This record gives sequence, C-alpha cells and structure tokens, in this order.
Amino acid sequence: MIGIDVLTDDVRLNEPTLVEGLPGVGLVGKLAADHLVETFGMVHYANVHCDGLAPVTTYATGDRSLTTPVRLYADAERDLLVLQSDVPVSPAAALEFAECLGGWSVDAEVASIYLSGIGRERDEEATPALYGVTAGGGGERLTDAGIDPPTESGLISGPTGALLSHALRTDAVAVGLVVEATPGFPDPEASAHLLENGVGPLLGTEIPVAELVDHAGEIRAAKRRLAERMEGTEETSSQARPLGMYQ
Amino acid sequence: MIGIDVLTDDVRLNEPTLVEGLPGVGLVGKLAADHLVETFGMVHYANVHCDGLAPVTTYATGDRSLTTPVRLYADAERDLLVLQSDVPVSPAAALEFAECLGGWSVDAEVASIYLSGIGRERDEEATPALYGVTAGGGGERLTDAGIDPPTESGLISGPTGALLSHALRTDAVAVGLVVEATPGFPDPEASAHLLENGVGPLLGTEIPVAELVDHAGEIRAAKRRLAERMEGTEETSSQARPLGMYQ
Amino acid sequence: MIGIDVLTDDVRLNEPTLVEGLPGVGLVGKLAADHLVETFGMVHYANVHCDGLAPVTTYATGDRSLTTPVRLYADAERDLLVLQSDVPVSPAAALEFAECLGGWSVDAEVASIYLSGIGRERDEEATPALYGVTAGGGGERLTDAGIDPPTESGLISGPTGALLSHALRTDAVAVGLVVEATPGFPDPEASAHLLENGVGPLLGTEIPVAELVDHAGEIRAAKRRLAERMEGTEETSSQARPLGMYQ
Amino acid sequence: MIGIDVLTDDVRLNEPTLVEGLPGVGLVGKLAADHLVETFGMVHYANVHCDGLAPVTTYATGDRSLTTPVRLYADAERDLLVLQSDVPVSPAAALEFAECLGGWSVDAEVASIYLSGIGRERDEEATPALYGVTAGGGGERLTDAGIDPPTESGLISGPTGALLSHALRTDAVAVGLVVEATPGFPDPEASAHLLENGVGPLLGTEIPVAELVDHAGEIRAAKRRLAERMEGTEETSSQARPLGMYQ
Amino acid sequence: MIGIDVLTDDVRLNEPTLVEGLPGVGLVGKLAADHLVETFGMVHYANVHCDGLAPVTTYATGDRSLTTPVRLYADAERDLLVLQSDVPVSPAAALEFAECLGGWSVDAEVASIYLSGIGRERDEEATPALYGVTAGGGGERLTDAGIDPPTESGLISGPTGALLSHALRTDAVAVGLVVEATPGFPDPEASAHLLENGVGPLLGTEIPVAELVDHAGEIRAAKRRLAERMEGTEETSSQARPLGMYQ
Repeated sequence: MIGIDVLTDDVRLNEPTLVEGLPGVGLVGKLAADHLVETFGMVHYANVHCDGLAPVTTYATGDRSLTTPVRLYADAERDLLVLQSDVPVSPAAALEFAECLGGWSVDAEVASIYLSGIGRERDEEATPALYGVTAGGGGERLTDAGIDPPTESGLISGPTGALLSHALRTDAVAVGLVVEATPGFPDPEASAHLLENGVGPLLGTEIPVAELVDHAGEIRAAKRRLAERMEGTEETSSQARPLGMYQ
Repeated sequence: MIGIDVLTDDVRLNEPTLVEGLPGVGLVGKLAADHLVETFGMVHYANVHCDGLAPVTTYATGDRSLTTPVRLYADAERDLLVLQSDVPVSPAAALEFAECLGGWSVDAEVASIYLSGIGRERDEEATPALYGVTAGGGGERLTDAGIDPPTESGLISGPTGALLSHALRTDAVAVGLVVEATPGFPDPEASAHLLENGVGPLLGTEIPVAELVDHAGEIRAAKRRLAERMEGTEETSSQARPLGMYQ
Repeated sequence: MIGIDVLTDDVRLNEPTLVEGLPGVGLVGKLAADHLVETFGMVHYANVHCDGLAPVTTYATGDRSLTTPVRLYADAERDLLVLQSDVPVSPAAALEFAECLGGWSVDAEVASIYLSGIGRERDEEATPALYGVTAGGGGERLTDAGIDPPTESGLISGPTGALLSHALRTDAVAVGLVVEATPGFPDPEASAHLLENGVGPLLGTEIPVAELVDHAGEIRAAKRRLAERMEGTEETSSQARPLGMYQ
Repeated sequence: MIGIDVLTDDVRLNEPTLVEGLPGVGLVGKLAADHLVETFGMVHYANVHCDGLAPVTTYATGDRSLTTPVRLYADAERDLLVLQSDVPVSPAAALEFAECLGGWSVDAEVASIYLSGIGRERDEEATPALYGVTAGGGGERLTDAGIDPPTESGLISGPTGALLSHALRTDAVAVGLVVEATPGFPDPEASAHLLENGVGPLLGTEIPVAELVDHAGEIRAAKRRLAERMEGTEETSSQARPLGMYQ
Repeated sequence: MIGIDVLTDDVRLNEPTLVEGLPGVGLVGKLAADHLVETFGMVHYANVHCDGLAPVTTYATGDRSLTTPVRLYADAERDLLVLQSDVPVSPAAALEFAECLGGWSVDAEVASIYLSGIGRERDEEATPALYGVTAGGGGERLTDAGIDPPTESGLISGPTGALLSHALRTDAVAVGLVVEATPGFPDPEASAHLLENGVGPLLGTEIPVAELVDHAGEIRAAKRRLAERMEGTEETSSQARPLGMYQ
C-alpha cells in the first residue's frame, strides 16, 4: 500500500477541509495541528505511506498499534481533516503526499489550509501579524473570514511551500495562512492567534485556544529542542520570508 | 540467486516465528539472536543475498564454507527462525529482505518478532522496562504473553524500524518488542530480560538466559567496540526513542 | 502543468522579444528586468513551472494570489516579454525553461536578449564597457543598434550561459549583452547603461532609466545581501569572464 | 568491447586456474600475482574493460602498446591465469569482472583462487598463519593441498570479498586463501608463504619464492607508498578481519 | 544538435590527423594545440556539443559569434584537425566526445595524436624526455618519426587517459605522446619540444616553435593561474605517471 491508507469506514466526510501542520518556523503549524487533534478529539483516520518519508514507525502511550509517522486525523462533525507529522518532511515527500491526496475516495474535493510562520521578533504584548494567500481561487473565503491580504511580498519554502507550489501547478484550491512567529523557538501564542483568527473563521468554528496560551511557557520548554532542530535544516522547515523592497 | 538461498531440505517448518536480531541500541537484538542460535543449537538454514547488503563473505572457526554476512538459522522442533547479521544493515537493505521473505516456500506465513532497545540509563538492580507493539494485528498474542503496551509514545528507526514500517504498509502480522537498554554499551542484562519475558512467552518456550547474565561483564567487554560503532551510525542502528510530551 | 502556464488570453504578442533577467554579477540582469516590468507597467503573463526550480511559492504586497518564483511579464504594445526570477536558477533548470519556451503558442518565434555582467572595478564616472554577442545570427540587429562586438575574449556561465549554450545548440536566434559591473555589489548604473544603450536600441524603444540612476545608492543598499549571496554560489550566478591572453 | 578482450589465439587453456591478485592488506595478493607473472614468464593474455574501472591506460618499459590497467596473464603449460591490477578496484567493478568472466570461451570452467591478507603484527621469525575457505565446494582440494580450515571466524571485504560473495551467490567454485600479513606495509614474506604453502600446492606446482624473500627489504621500501595508499581507502583494499568471540 | 556540429562545407579533409590538446600537466597539450591553431591559421571547423561539458559559451575578440568552449579547428592543406578547449573536460565528457567523433562524415578514418605531460623537475638546459605509445597499432608511424618507446612503465589518466582508453577498447588507431614537464607550472619549452620532435615528425610537417620558446617567460606568467587550477583538480587534468619499479 503506497499512499493514504484509510483505516476506518465509519467516518463520513463531505467536502472536508484539510489543515496541514508540518514542522516549521516557530512550530506554529505543528502546534496548531496537534491542538486541533486534541481539542476536538479527532480520530486517527489514515496512515500516510509515501516513499520520501523516513521508513520508521511510531506508537502512542497505552496503544499497541504501530502507526506511520505522518497521519491524518478526522472530525466528521466539522468535516475536518488534520495532517500531523512526527518526523521532518522533505519537499519531495510533501509533493508525493499531495499527489496521493488526489486519488482519494471522499465525497468531494478537499480544500486545504496550509500554515506557515514568518520569522520575526516581536514585543511581548504585540499581536502577531497574520495574512492569507491563495492558489486556484479561494480569495473570497479569506475575505469573508476577515483575513487580510499580505502586507509585504514574500516567499514560502519547505514542505508547505512545496504543497502550495503543487496546488498552483495543478489548479487545486488552497489557502495559505502566514503568521509572524519567533524564529528558533516554539511560539504557542502565534499558533493560538493563527487558530483563533485564521483557521477558526475559515472553518466557521470557534477553536478554544486557552490551553495553548496558558501553558505557553511549558510548551515552549517542552518543544524547544524540536524547534531548534527544525530551524537548523532549512529544507524540511516550512517558512515564509519577506522578499525585500526590490526583490 | 538474489534473495533467500535455502541451504537444506531437511528442515521442515510449519508457521514458523522469525526473531530478528539486527544490531542496534545496547545490541539487545543481536545478543538475543546470537544467544538463541547458540542455546538451541540452531542450524544454518539460509544465506541472504540482498543488493543493499555489503558485498562481503564470512566464515566461522573450523569451517571452510563461506557464508553470507546476513543469515537465517532454523530450529524445526520449535518452528523458530532467527535472522543473524555480522554487518550493519541499512533500512533500504532491510526493506529488500522483507520483500524477499514474502516469496518463500514455507508451509505457512511467517510471523515476525522484531527487537529494539530504547536508550536509557538505569540503576544496577533495576529491571529494564519492556513493552510490545504490533502491526497487522497480533495484540492478543502480546496480551496472552503478559507483555505490556507502551507506557510512553515513541518512534522506532533503523533497519528494525524499516521492517516494521514494511509490515505496516503490507498488512503483515508483526510484533515489536522494545526494551530499555544502556546506550553506547552492550547490555546483556536487557537482552536477557527481553528473551526471558518477551521472546520466550511469545514463543511459548523457556529460554535459559543464565549464560548471558553470568557472563555479562565479559560480553560487555568483548562487544564494546561493536556497540560503539553501531551507535555512531544512526541509520544502521535500530532504536526506539520517546516522542516527548507533545511531539 | 509542467512548463509555461499562460494566465491570460488578453495579451496578443506578435514576434515578441524576450528579455531575460536572471540573477548574476552586479545583478545587472535582474535590476534591468525588474525595472522594465515596473516602468512599462507590464502584466503578469505566465507562471513558469520547471522541475529544476525550487518548489516554493511567492506573493506580492496586497495581492492574495500565489505565483511561481520565476515568471513572465508581457507588454503587448511593445511586443515585449520579460523573464523575472525571485530565486536562484541552476543551469539545468534554465535549460528546461529554454525547452518549454519552444512549445509556446505565440504568433511567431521569440527572439531573446540575454543579459550578463562581467565583473570589473571601474572609476566612479567611467562608463561601463558594453558589447554584444550572438548565436544563430542576429549580428546585424546588434550593428544596427550601435552595439560593439567584444573587445576581449570571454566565457559566459551560469543560467544565462546555459540559455545561450542551448540557443547555440538548437540554432535559435539569441543576442547576449555583456556589460562591465562591480563584482559583489548591485550595480544600478551598469544596469541603466545596459538598458539605455543595449536593450533600448535593440527594442527600438526609449527606456527611461533616471530612477535607477537617481536611486542607485538606495538600491545598492537594499539589494546588497542578494548580490553577495548570488556571487557566492557561482553555478546559479550568470557572469561573463575574460579568457585571458592565451586561453 | 566491454569485458575481457583476449589478445591472442595462441594460448590454449584447459580448465585453467585463475589466481587473483588485487591490492589489499600487506599487498600479499598483488605481490603474489606479480611474482607469478614474472617467475613463470607469463604472457599478457587479455585486457579487461569493465565500466567500474578507472578510464586510464598503462604502458610498460620498452613497449609501445597501451594496455588496460587490469589485465590477465596466461601460462598455457601450467593452465594458469593471473589477474593483475595497476589501479585500485572497487567491489562494484570486481563484480562486473566476475560477470564478464562467465562469458568466456575457454575449454572449461575456470576455478578461481582468491588471495587476502588478514592484518596482524607478528614476530620476525614467526611463520604467518594461513588458512583456506571455499564457496561452491572445493574443500577437498584444500584438504589435499594440506591447507587448514580457519582457526577463527572472520569477514573478507574489498574487491576480493566481492568476488567471493559473487561466487557464493552464483554457486561458482572458488577458493579463498587468507594469510596473516603486517598491516600498513608490504609483506613479501607473507606473500612468499602464501605462494609456497597455499597457491603452489593447490596448483600442484613448485613456485620458487627465493627472490621475494631475499629482496624483501627492497620490495618493502619500493612498495611502501602503494601499501599505505591502499590501506587508507578501505573499500578498494581486500582484507580479512576476525569477527571476534561473539560477533 | 548533440555531438560535433561542423560549421562549414568549404574544408575538405582526407584521412586527417587529429591533435588533441586538453588541459593537463604543464599545460603541454593545450599550449601545443593553441600554438598549432595560431601558427597555421587554422579555421574554426566545428563546435562540440557534449552533455558532460559545462553549459557555457565563449566568444573571441572582435567576433560577435558565440562558440562552444570545446572546438575543432581545421587545416585542409595539412589534413590537420586540432581539438581546443577553454574549459576543464572530465573523463566522462571526453568519452562522449570520442563516441561523437565516430559518426563523422569525413573522407576517411581520423588518426589521433594525444598529448600528455609527465610531471618531473628538470635542469634549465636539459631536454625533456619524450616517448610515444599506441593503441590499435600505429607503432611504425612512431618509429618512422624517430620517437622512442617508453623508458619506464607508466599510467595516463585524466581526459587524455580516457580518450586513449576508449581507443584501446574500440580498436581505434591512436598515438600518445608523453613529454616530461614541470608540474604545477606552464612549460612552453616542453610543449615546443613536443611539437618539434613529436607532433611535427608524425605529421611530416615542420612546426616553427620559436615563439613558444622566445616568449616562454611571458606565457608562463600569463597561464600560471590556469596551470595551478588544472593541477588541483586531478580528474580533469591529463597526466602520465610512472608506475614505479614493481607496480
């Protein structure tokens, strides 16, 4: 079985939205994805077998069943899918995942929301900037959700950049959310802001983020090593960067 | 001849269990595999010719016959196979081995037991933690054998991780045993514990481990260089790692 | 969609000229290309999807639409195309682009103008030397435009060298303009000279360059990091070099 | 012409024995092969063209004819072939050579003798240990020649290991001789012992080795640089290594 | 157009001799080739398009036409071709060139003369040693021209080694001239000696070399950087090396 191995027939999805949470700057995507899975009690919906991914297996506390390190979680009630990863993902493996996704037997097209941080220091109380970009249309959805267009020119790289590049190439509908995040550290506040003012309005769902904000310090400590490791390997770390005044 | 070259027609196996013992953390798998071969007087059953393996040959004291560095040993009475390796094995070569195994002319499916250490210091008298995970079912067998589910989330990499990943992908039945082991040193006690409380109950066989425990000091000295070399090359060293609170 | 994805049917081009502006010595090509796009208010005509290019996406201030990092801009009135890039381009990706270009549904052959700096220090007031070379004919066009032949022997490498090499191999008509430029720094004056006395006469169009010259200091400051990065990676930086007296 | 280019029709071989002398520990194989060629006045029988070999040519004093750096020499009277190399040979190139050898138009199967040193310091007067191993049968021939089975377990790597691994995989008859040799230095005494008590008895021929022993000092000095270079690049240096008590 | 792109129909060649002048030790081949082209006023006969060559273009003073960096020059009167290169050539690209050459529409087989230096210091007044080797016959031609056979055993590597290896493999007629040259510096005297006593007699033509000898100092200074660069990258630098007394 190469590709996406759906584990259950019980979950019925209708035009679901996929929220991607691959590791990157400030870990904003991964923190958001993990938070969604936990907060909404999402079920492990599919294992992802792609050739570019590390040939490793993962397991969770109290559960004997081995899983792939990249997985999909589902919430039928909210027609929501979340992509979660325990390993770095190369752009090539991300592209393969994007191609797998096309062959899927769901009731309708999957609309995707891709998350990326843009590294920038900010004052303790400042709200991180947040803006939305799109491929294959989808701009109205962003406007309706009250998400601003970009206030600077920029470039998105890493696995998330590859997924958006694939959407652009294949005319798939995709939305990208870019949020300012502290580089080199996990940034739970930026992730909370991203969920509350970006993902939530897009999904038409309120996402409680108190836990992320209240335990920001602990999360920052617990995930610091992971954040540092991700920043070190630019290729597998999703990030947006400003293009500067001229370029 | 690419693949598994069975050397003898004399050994009749019926739904055999394969115990894998590739080098990894604490050498627990390799020590266990070597111990089984010696203790049960298992016969050299097959040479393993896979493209990813080092193109070298091995020989044993007093025996002129050259052998492959990765070999299968068999014990017909116990319907047992052991995979033994004298060289590091890459995940790619492990995958090829897994595919070879499928084409085999044995009386029934082979059920596999994969062994991995998880590096962690422990007190001299402490019993190392041991838990079992599965792919493609097999959980009952673990429960029946009194082996606990994992008490933490984790990730298994190296050749053993690749073999378990392959089992998960192909829906093959596989059991993984993870035991705490001293990182960077051979850990015969952990290996003995793994055999006595993991492999033995799964096989329904008592495995005498006194020799491993009694000669632990000598074994540790004799295999130290090998253990160090294995730890240095993460890719060919099987190991489990905890995933941490959030990731 | 692999190749050149034309975004609009509204632009009618008739035997257009393509001006290439990939990053290189003194950034003369990139500065010239960006300047043409801005000064002539050119429209984003096509996204360029080539396998060798970085799998990233870009966006501009105030615009939600994601774009490829390498793009074509068009000016129907002047029958002009400009190739603009926000990322380094390898010679291999440049070759692929050259092959894509052949399959294009335009009214006629595209004649190309390739731009390259040749690194050389010069006095503040000195006019940089400028000369033109050709593949597949095109010499008359240079003579008519009053552009001198080279006054030294030289070699053009990087993506621009690859594009000219491809033209030579396929008997395509191509013109190369080589201008002296300060190595390691952006050189807006050299780029202005290139536009005013090279590209303009070839296109039969006056190109206002006051902005490039007047804001040379700011541009130099803003683009310095980009220029340094480009020089560091010789392969993706287009440049001409003198071959010396004998070689 | 890819493969083995036989240069002469004059040499008639009947079930010849091939002695391989690729560079390795103590240069024992290469010294033995060169000595056989010179002592028996063997003729240059074939050039070896294999893709993995360095694309270079060689020539000898007083002879205008260019040759391949890997060559076969023949002695029709003794039904003997010797493989000589002036360049390092990778295991991959060795495997290709092994496959070429199969397509050969000789009167009968070629039986091969492969030579390897096992690095170990020894006292000046001590006789180096020597033992024989086999693939595809051939043990009787060793017993008849009075060559002992191995007194320790071991692993043969490098190009000689690859050739023996190929023989094992293809069920070809092959004999391997392993002799103790000083690591990092040419060891003409070990090579002489190998010829006198290993190769000679196997061929049923007396091989005069006085020259090797008498000029040991000169040979050691002349070949020292080559020996050092070979040891540095483990992959192209044939060697046997003990596997240790447990592994 | 992959391969050799002949630019003119005007040059009629009848059983021409090709003199190769790729960069190598002492730059003897390149200096000789450049000298022949200039002294005999040879015409640019063909561009060489091979995949392994750098994708760059070259141009000459006062000439707008772009050229490939590797080119053939012809002298119809002397039935002479010269291979000139402005870039380093890898052995793989050299092999491809050798294969291109076979498909050529000339009146007869091309006989090739390959040039290589062998690095060795010599006294100011000493005449550098010069000898000739052959593949596929051609020894008589050397004897007739009064060129000695080698006075030592040796090995020719780099692109020239690859071309000679290809000739040997394909039974093509080829002559190799090896001349002593100062390593790490351009050696115009060695090149002059090579032309006067090697290439000239083989072609049956007197080659005036006064310019090379008289301007040796200037040439040495002008080409020093190129010579150093070539020596640094052993693979693309043609050279002969002695094999030593035994090997």
